[in-house]
Amino acid sequence: MPPISSKVHINVDLGEGYGNYQPFPDDELLPLIDFANIACGFHAGDPLIMSRTVKACKAHNIRMGAHPGLPDLQGFGRRRIDIGAEELEAGCRYQIGALKAMLDGEGVPMHHVKPHGTLYGMCYQDVETCRAVYRAIPLGVAVFGLAGTFHEQVAKEMGIKFFAEAYGDVKWSKDGLLVIDRVKKAWTTEDTKKHILSQLEKSSVTVVTGEEVELPFEGREVTLCCHSDSPGAVEIVTAARGIVDGFNEKHGYT
Amino acid sequence: MPPISSKVHINVDLGEGYGNYQPFPDDELLPLIDFANIACGFHAGDPLIMSRTVKACKAHNIRMGAHPGLPDLQGFGRRRIDIGAEELEAGCRYQIGALKAMLDGEGVPMHHVKPHGTLYGMCYQDVETCRAVYRAIPLGVAVFGLAGTFHEQVAKEMGIKFFAEAYGDVKWSKDGLLVIDRVKKAWTTEDTKKHILSQLEKSSVTVVTGEEVELPFEGREVTLCCHSDSPGAVEIVTAARGIVDGFNEKHGYT
Amino acid sequence: MPPISSKVHINVDLGEGYGNYQPFPDDELLPLIDFANIACGFHAGDPLIMSRTVKACKAHNIRMGAHPGLPDLQGFGRRRIDIGAEELEAGCRYQIGALKAMLDGEGVPMHHVKPHGTLYGMCYQDVETCRAVYRAIPLGVAVFGLAGTFHEQVAKEMGIKFFAEAYGDVKWSKDGLLVIDRVKKAWTTEDTKKHILSQLEKSSVTVVTGEEVELPFEGREVTLCCHSDSPGAVEIVTAARGIVDGFNEKHGYT
Amino acid sequence: MPPISSKVHINVDLGEGYGNYQPFPDDELLPLIDFANIACGFHAGDPLIMSRTVKACKAHNIRMGAHPGLPDLQGFGRRRIDIGAEELEAGCRYQIGALKAMLDGEGVPMHHVKPHGTLYGMCYQDVETCRAVYRAIPLGVAVFGLAGTFHEQVAKEMGIKFFAEAYGDVKWSKDGLLVIDRVKKAWTTEDTKKHILSQLEKSSVTVVTGEEVELPFEGREVTLCCHSDSPGAVEIVTAARGIVDGFNEKHGYT
Repeated sequence: MPPISSKVHINVDLGEGYGNYQPFPDDELLPLIDFANIACGFHAGDPLIMSRTVKACKAHNIRMGAHPGLPDLQGFGRRRIDIGAEELEAGCRYQIGALKAMLDGEGVPMHHVKPHGTLYGMCYQDVETCRAVYRAIPLGVAVFGLAGTFHEQVAKEMGIKFFAEAYGDVKWSKDGLLVIDRVKKAWTTEDTKKHILSQLEKSSVTVVTGEEVELPFEGREVTLCCHSDSPGAVEIVTAARGIVDGFNEKHGYT
Repeated sequence: MPPISSKVHINVDLGEGYGNYQPFPDDELLPLIDFANIACGFHAGDPLIMSRTVKACKAHNIRMGAHPGLPDLQGFGRRRIDIGAEELEAGCRYQIGALKAMLDGEGVPMHHVKPHGTLYGMCYQDVETCRAVYRAIPLGVAVFGLAGTFHEQVAKEMGIKFFAEAYGDVKWSKDGLLVIDRVKKAWTTEDTKKHILSQLEKSSVTVVTGEEVELPFEGREVTLCCHSDSPGAVEIVTAARGIVDGFNEKHGYT
Repeated sequence: MPPISSKVHINVDLGEGYGNYQPFPDDELLPLIDFANIACGFHAGDPLIMSRTVKACKAHNIRMGAHPGLPDLQGFGRRRIDIGAEELEAGCRYQIGALKAMLDGEGVPMHHVKPHGTLYGMCYQDVETCRAVYRAIPLGVAVFGLAGTFHEQVAKEMGIKFFAEAYGDVKWSKDGLLVIDRVKKAWTTEDTKKHILSQLEKSSVTVVTGEEVELPFEGREVTLCCHSDSPGAVEIVTAARGIVDGFNEKHGYT
Repeated sequence: MPPISSKVHINVDLGEGYGNYQPFPDDELLPLIDFANIACGFHAGDPLIMSRTVKACKAHNIRMGAHPGLPDLQGFGRRRIDIGAEELEAGCRYQIGALKAMLDGEGVPMHHVKPHGTLYGMCYQDVETCRAVYRAIPLGVAVFGLAGTFHEQVAKEMGIKFFAEAYGDVKWSKDGLLVIDRVKKAWTTEDTKKHILSQLEKSSVTVVTGEEVELPFEGREVTLCCHSDSPGAVEIVTAARGIVDGFNEKHGYT
């Protein structure tokens, strides 16, 4: 498979603490990333953390998006909850609106929306769920999702700009989907580098069951996702930054 | 004292249920009111209720505002919590933004903001608290508050349009402030009528300790507040509607 | 099918308000019931409501049980959440212990445990879930459940006394299970009476799809469940009381 | 002033994470402490964390107590909330009962209760608040508190065994009370050692304003408190362990 055909940006979930719990290395990640997915208070994040995260991202020229999740702080948005489409749409509109107010306060636009954790998975598994979530996205705002799934199909239906995601610290399954754990496992830097390089240079990846699987990146704008709650997140994102910069330079993507 | 000098509108808190708890007679109040203060999820309200309330208000041509509260569903926003100014501002921005997204989705503007319960009281008692809350108000949006208190002073400072509140179902104290109970007490319709008429026609009120106290309504635009969680709310608001309509007509306010 | 073979008791969920939300007619139900399932704060109930409910039940000589639910106040415990067995056991132990402390404070024993809503359903659908929940039940405390399902099987395994439930205001499905709505629908008193009489006198019921289905009540101690959040709950429970008293008297069950 | 007159034990708050947030070094502290104050889910802790903490403490022969807090996860129980006595008592009974169920499940007794953060402060400032909280304590369970304050007075009134607290990582004020920050500041090991040694050997301490203040430890059983959420907690507690062991040995306290 060919390499990704346009400039790759790094996106990371930020602001995923809550109250006094702020164990993730957001400050160290800020200089390393292009796009931030900011938690909106349902699975993580609270208004004060959101407000400070928005100001910090602005100072680092990071483009910001909303990262709405299921209403489940205890499960970090990684436990499936059966919620109907109307309630899901309202919950996403609520979270996205809350973040938008923070951005408006700083005079910066909302760049994208990326559903979090299990909600992200529910959107690529069920078209009505995806439509409910996407209906809550303001005009002119992009989405990040899995190429070739309902994420992309519904974006197309609704005229929403779509970025395909590559992953720095999440494993893929054989059917081109993701394997999401409630608590992230540790990665070695070497594993991360190989994992990323393969996705970028060959649009393919070794999945959990060992096969090499092609990823439908062709013709898409791709953004590489890393997580702030991964063990060793700073090392992972530092490695990712080096690879992505090298990749963009090698292919002349500016 | 003279009567209120311009047209009076009725405002009521709506959408103050939560999940399956929807004990308040919102549906019956909709045809009776001019302005709705919509709960934003911290002291009451959830995204689904907010979304449905916005649609219902739109259908009744009610002008809508945000009704942000302290983060205390268990106490219905009527227990004092010590929160610093930065966190309070962020929390209000969050709630107001969440409602604004619902309004944007329906293509209707936000008319006003009115802090709820104890937060309303904290704003007229402490100027820095009031400033923190008002900093979260979007440009062009009005506030409802107590005339002659920090509510009005800070609105003036910040160039925010101010509506003075009269009260249909809340008692006043001798110093021209309000007496807020965690759970609302019952009122007779007769008491309500006398209470409202006095405020409208004489800009004065009999306070809890028995004195007649003048209210600084002169020169202000006044809106009469009634509560959906008062026992007998429909009777109170029906009576209020009659009085207000009569008052507006008698004085030729259109 | 024969009638139920021993005295029938009425059980009702009580204390299912939260904070200022107390829309259910608990006070009117107290004189009408034998057993109360008291909400423990996860799907409904808060410590103050629990404490007051325990005192009120004690004054009415009602035997009390814990009514643990999924951690979902917004969904009233009626939305499925995927929670692992260890976390579910801990959550039930937590809720049951909280209620037990209230009972200990009043010097009354815990009579039973009955999982609420979707958790009740998850227990009869999955044996490991049922075991996790039942492991949290203190020695000597009974359970209420569906006869012939994992509810009963696991109770037997663990040496827990089992009461089979009949239902006053919930419909049955063809496979002898329940049809649970997030928000309860209204019942006419006539429908309720027929529904109850059939279960008591014939150990059978007309299910939602119209068939007559036998219920495996034979040889079990049966308790009839009604809900405080059903529209018309007081009428339903009053009717149920009359039928149950008549039934017990007719068959000489004392 | 004389040294403390009986064996000193170290107590630490454990289980103060929530969901995926578990940033505190509980595992490393377990071998170092005598008593654990286990968070009960209101200011921190959740059922799964509580359950695992109880098992871990049991394995390390740590005596366990309940650490109830204000219902404020976002503020980590360190923001004042105005809650009436009846509601406070119910909330403490709830939390203490929840932990007791975990202990019962492991067959270990509850050793003590220690209110958390702002609730601890509210108890030594207001006698009715203290009484409300202490009414929720089961028979035979001790309390930890500040000697010479309502903590001790109310314990005496109610016949509750009282342990006076010394502090490893909290500063004292001139009036013999504590200075509690919402987020803990860093301490050097040297400062900690001096702070502890002075309390143990001289029953006095240098307070935030610089004065040397005597502490009424005489005739009390004393337990030294350190916090798992202090920066450098493991170093602080390791230092404390060394000092306390040396102190106990030197004075022949066994």
